[in-house]
Amino acid sequence: MSQSLTINRQLVLAERPQGEPNKDTLRLETSTVPKPAPGQILLRTEYLSLDPYMRGRMSDAPSYAAPVALGAVMEGGTVAQVVVSHLEGFNPGDWVLCANGWQDFAVSDGEGVTVLGPDLAHPSWALGIMGMPGFTAWAGLTQIGLPKPDETVCVAAATGPVGATVGQIAKLMGCTVVGIAGGAEKCAFAVNDLGFDACIDHKSDGFANQLKAATPKGIDVYFENVGGAVFDAVLPLLNTAARIPLCGLVSGYNATALPTGPDRMGWLMGQILRKRLTMRGFIIFQDFGHLYPEFATAMTDWLAAGKIHYREEVIEGLEAAPRAFIGLLRGESFGKRVIHVGPEKMIENKEGVI
Amino acid sequence: MSQSLTINRQLVLAERPQGEPNKDTLRLETSTVPKPAPGQILLRTEYLSLDPYMRGRMSDAPSYAAPVALGAVMEGGTVAQVVVSHLEGFNPGDWVLCANGWQDFAVSDGEGVTVLGPDLAHPSWALGIMGMPGFTAWAGLTQIGLPKPDETVCVAAATGPVGATVGQIAKLMGCTVVGIAGGAEKCAFAVNDLGFDACIDHKSDGFANQLKAATPKGIDVYFENVGGAVFDAVLPLLNTAARIPLCGLVSGYNATALPTGPDRMGWLMGQILRKRLTMRGFIIFQDFGHLYPEFATAMTDWLAAGKIHYREEVIEGLEAAPRAFIGLLRGESFGKRVIHVGPEKMIENKEGVI
Repeated sequence: MSQSLTINRQLVLAERPQGEPNKDTLRLETSTVPKPAPGQILLRTEYLSLDPYMRGRMSDAPSYAAPVALGAVMEGGTVAQVVVSHLEGFNPGDWVLCANGWQDFAVSDGEGVTVLGPDLAHPSWALGIMGMPGFTAWAGLTQIGLPKPDETVCVAAATGPVGATVGQIAKLMGCTVVGIAGGAEKCAFAVNDLGFDACIDHKSDGFANQLKAATPKGIDVYFENVGGAVFDAVLPLLNTAARIPLCGLVSGYNATALPTGPDRMGWLMGQILRKRLTMRGFIIFQDFGHLYPEFATAMTDWLAAGKIHYREEVIEGLEAAPRAFIGLLRGESFGKRVIHVGPEKMIENKEGVI
Repeated sequence: MSQSLTINRQLVLAERPQGEPNKDTLRLETSTVPKPAPGQILLRTEYLSLDPYMRGRMSDAPSYAAPVALGAVMEGGTVAQVVVSHLEGFNPGDWVLCANGWQDFAVSDGEGVTVLGPDLAHPSWALGIMGMPGFTAWAGLTQIGLPKPDETVCVAAATGPVGATVGQIAKLMGCTVVGIAGGAEKCAFAVNDLGFDACIDHKSDGFANQLKAATPKGIDVYFENVGGAVFDAVLPLLNTAARIPLCGLVSGYNATALPTGPDRMGWLMGQILRKRLTMRGFIIFQDFGHLYPEFATAMTDWLAAGKIHYREEVIEGLEAAPRAFIGLLRGESFGKRVIHVGPEKMIENKEGVI
């Protein structure tokens, strides 16, 4: 079933996953398209962003955000078009950045909805390089990582939308950049297309030794997206006074229990003390939302000048989203993974949508 | 044997301790008093500081500073008097802050030696409230902790020279201050003499619950000196965006192996991510040495105005230092522990020393 103007497909949270999400985690439901009241707009989802943080929303463990309720539409960032507007400032046909979640249609009073304009070359980029992942990379690197020229910046998930941006900005700042990614193809891309100085495959034999060889001056900034065995390899290589922007720990998101011992928690703190490290967790809009305009200006310029390369992986159809999300957590994505929810013709013929 | 002008008593590192230092860790040796060459000064130790970091110097595990060599004089901060000076800027009788280590006499070319002046009301304070511990407290709190008025600051080892100063400065900054200390007497002192809002005994039953009850608004700044079970109790109470100046982990300094599992290292990183925490290790003079004048001005004013209370624990005699250091690591000290190395008469009759 593809997107229509009469049926609202919704993926709702059917059960909280134990470990990896599976085919029973989300359930496809259909309902009628909601009608906007006065002061409201009707939004049609064109692109849905898939991001690792969504795994946290499926769980009811304590976190910085409330979990998605069982039976509720799964949350997610979206690029949508205004279909009907009863609200000043929103015109039919406008592209907007919003959080419709995993569904075709949503009604909104405009709160949290950002108008992107009537005509965009790359509407989906608002979910990636110009949006949350790109902003996360820029802010984590420039506000916490604080790299100086000639320092070594290491970034995990190096071809993901955050990691790829971190590394490219660090290159623009004059740093040596060493990525970590899963598989030879991604590593080659990081070096050849993104311009990293090196990229090490964490799935390869001798990963830790290869990483050590690739960072002869140690690591001054480690941008953490992954955790687990990747962090184990990085920690001994961190230089005195290194900074660790802690952005994600995707390797552990499906974990159902703590790893077996010994307990290294105190040992990690000892490393932070003796190496005078700074480790800071951040959630992009809560910590740095006020800096978005500065980021947007810089990134727009870099993209216009061809200084930042952006790879996107568009997967067709809302029904494909659950499987695509499971793959994302497994490291199967290559570039920013988005779901194209809207039918192709609607993109090509924006004027005919309303 | 007390201090004389003809014999130099030295405590040298006899063996690297496994676990807690013991009577065989240090060895008392005697030698002749060294003679200063042209361009040198002869220094006589009056006070020796005992500090937890010294445990690290006894070990050859990788750290931010080289270990003391076997057979070498144990390192340590000292307040000394100039006995003989062949160096401009140093006059016989001057008090100086230096690092003679655990011995009576040392010769120096003046590097790292700070003249305190010919007459001081409290020479030993240069090892405490006006020196490394006081500066550590001030810098860790003001540069990393960044407390705002009405925030809750929690500090471990609350009656130690660092913790007591952290808490009192935080009170001056308008914060609610909750200390953690070992034993009812120390806790009463923290509240009654230091002016903390509360102080919880980590040796008491239900410590974690008591700490929770004493921090109804959570903890915004946790100044870490201790680690281990104390940190376990603090971590769940940390508020979003809390800051953790990581100054010491004394509870683990004698550990010979990691605790048994599960391995909570990744879990701690998950807490840092989800709570958007900042954890930063620091070594005072490497990180903040340039701020010493600012600290000294502020602390001098606070002391003159009676706004900071300073408790010192003077233990008589260099030979008592090894046992006193073992006790320090056990939490037996109450206030800043210093060894009075010089004989009493030398203090009373400074003019007669030379």
